[in-house]
Amino acid sequence: SNDVKEYENYFGMTLLDRRTDKRTDSKWLSKKQSHPTTVYILFSNLSPLVTLGGGTESSQQPEVKLCRLYHSDVEQCLNQTEECTLIFLGVELRQNLMAACNGRIVQEDEEDGLVAWFALSIDSASAEKFKQKREGCYFLHPPMPALLQLPEKEAGMVAQARSVLAWHDRYRYCPTCGSATKTEEGGYKKTCLKEDCPSLQGVHNTSYPRVDPVVIMQVIHPDGNHCLLGRQKRFPPGMFTCLAGFVEPGETIEDAVRREVEEEAGVKVGHVQYVSCQPWPMPSSLMIGCLAVAVSTEIRVDKNEIEDARWFTREQVVEVLMKGNQRSFFVPPSRAIAHQLIKHWIGMNANL
Amino acid sequence: SNDVKEYENYFGMTLLDRRTDKRTDSKWLSKKQSHPTTVYILFSNLSPLVTLGGGTESSQQPEVKLCRLYHSDVEQCLNQTEECTLIFLGVELRQNLMAACNGRIVQEDEEDGLVAWFALSIDSASAEKFKQKREGCYFLHPPMPALLQLPEKEAGMVAQARSVLAWHDRYRYCPTCGSATKTEEGGYKKTCLKEDCPSLQGVHNTSYPRVDPVVIMQVIHPDGNHCLLGRQKRFPPGMFTCLAGFVEPGETIEDAVRREVEEEAGVKVGHVQYVSCQPWPMPSSLMIGCLAVAVSTEIRVDKNEIEDARWFTREQVVEVLMKGNQRSFFVPPSRAIAHQLIKHWIGMNANL
Ligand SMILES: Nc1ncnc2c1ncn2[C@@H]1O[C@H](COP(=O)(O)O)[C@@H](O)[C@H]1O
Ligand SMILES: Nc1ncnc2c1ncn2[C@@H]1O[C@H](COP(=O)(O)O)[C@@H](O)[C@H]1O
Repeated sequence: SNDVKEYENYFGMTLLDRRTDKRTDSKWLSKKQSHPTTVYILFSNLSPLVTLGGGTESSQQPEVKLCRLYHSDVEQCLNQTEECTLIFLGVELRQNLMAACNGRIVQEDEEDGLVAWFALSIDSASAEKFKQKREGCYFLHPPMPALLQLPEKEAGMVAQARSVLAWHDRYRYCPTCGSATKTEEGGYKKTCLKEDCPSLQGVHNTSYPRVDPVVIMQVIHPDGNHCLLGRQKRFPPGMFTCLAGFVEPGETIEDAVRREVEEEAGVKVGHVQYVSCQPWPMPSSLMIGCLAVAVSTEIRVDKNEIEDARWFTREQVVEVLMKGNQRSFFVPPSRAIAHQLIKHWIGMNANL
Repeated sequence: SNDVKEYENYFGMTLLDRRTDKRTDSKWLSKKQSHPTTVYILFSNLSPLVTLGGGTESSQQPEVKLCRLYHSDVEQCLNQTEECTLIFLGVELRQNLMAACNGRIVQEDEEDGLVAWFALSIDSASAEKFKQKREGCYFLHPPMPALLQLPEKEAGMVAQARSVLAWHDRYRYCPTCGSATKTEEGGYKKTCLKEDCPSLQGVHNTSYPRVDPVVIMQVIHPDGNHCLLGRQKRFPPGMFTCLAGFVEPGETIEDAVRREVEEEAGVKVGHVQYVSCQPWPMPSSLMIGCLAVAVSTEIRVDKNEIEDARWFTREQVVEVLMKGNQRSFFVPPSRAIAHQLIKHWIGMNANL
């Protein structure tokens, strides 16, 4: 069912209500910043500060989890403000309020009782100091595949925060006139500081975070019993996955699927069907997962784009998913949408 | 069927194969630029040069169509190159080669026989000169709703060209360091001219055109017999349409639908289903059309975002679609995805 698919959407699940209406309420934002229940998650170089969480569920291997900090922990960083970026992530969903508090005593804000979350990005020097002060805490680096170790419920906040922070990192200057910009609206808007810049007239996407739509597709052989998986040179040896590519300006999702499959593997696709999507914060993609039915079978690999592409039988894929058989090949982990698309095709949405 | 939906996808249908592989083949590109079969479409201020096409199909009202120009027509503009931007759009699809030639004698290129298309954007002064030279030609301005008058087969090229040109217009400087940039790869890449800019290390989205995913949704009342339509202050009086909004960083399509409906109308949504999508070159959106099932019914309009939102009965909507009844309200024209989503719900995918 659709619910199952969505539950399995790693990076797409969150405990927060974004409350976009609060982004323009600077009084509320500044009050929440210093409120004792407010939670801060820390980033350095786009990597979150984490710690090892000893088995909350019995006999589980220790899981990496976010360090939840409070105003008193980050006050110093906030006051220096040199190279620090603050993003309002949202407020805890009511139904999760109890669970998320995890025993700590919450003094509810007299006015609204909302527990706000912020992401705070600090420079490398401050990050180093922070790490030394807090035993067992470290910045999850490099981000992939390490980010996939986070609890499902924290991954969504990290995806949101990392995408917006990456935008701040790369979009420091006004692309329309090259001037410096200032940040507004809880971190979701950048405004050019040059008085007569054309970007100040009307609404322009230069002021807002970027989200890059990407198609990723499970391509089915006309016989219905094979699927097309490929690999890039930079993949670990033996890993094959669904083909993927950026949606171009003026292109539909369905045509992007057909173009990418033909470009990368020389295979023609007819019918395309949307399955599910996944935010992918590397840095800010929206992976749009589809099933695509091939109408030709001969593979011609474009060596500039991928290293190899092959038809795999349903049996081969079932074996890899069931047994994690790594002898011949393997596929991405279950928290990647490619895995979910492959599983969707196999027709096994239950626990594999 | 899916084919019907895709055929009805205005701005998403094209006669061109993008041939992205040719973007890096500067020798091929420059040869095609001066080739006599190459087609140029001209833009000024993001509006295409068009002419009135007298009834190709009998007794039809004259349709606006693109002016197809050739190298000799634009040679002068290309050579001055001050404020002109050139975008490679693709090559004519083989099966359309005959139809597209429309009787003119095509001298096929000895080497590949491909008919290339380019979009050329010129400054206002050159545009004025051009218009005066060519009787009956004019720039389609303002773009909306005028662009919806183009033949379906030309709308896709215009969507692609307009989106990429809008990116050039707004993203002139490197957002990472504020320096000037140079254009590469047939108009699809901008590279920072500062030697030590971090954007030159690795692959960054700052170099590539932006596509903004937007969700647009037909919200169905829990009783199945009403749908939720809203209007913004800037709409023509009486027009109601589907709610819509930008997908945020780190958000799924389904959650964006739920968030936007709750933000704008205070209605809670449960199940969400993708229906179809449409590129929308204003300036570069990808409209992702969904059906959304409401789980609450009370409407609380956020006056900052929209002016009004109401439940309309199936009968009211059928009447408006069938009879174009404009007494009580009306919906966007059939070439807008909102119209298609509404029609999809009504269950009338045939010619209305
Ligand atoms: N990429 C974007 N481009 C333009 N507006 C955006 C973007 N992302 C978010 N927004 C917000 O959406 C509003 C415009 O929405 P609309 O009236 O639908 O054009 C702006 O005022 C922004 O707050
Ligand atoms: N928004 C984008 N961000 C990064 N790369 C892009 C983007 N749009 C198109 N591309 C192209 O996609 C290639 C990278 O694809 P990938 O290897 O999948 O990351 C780049 O070399 C570009 O040619």
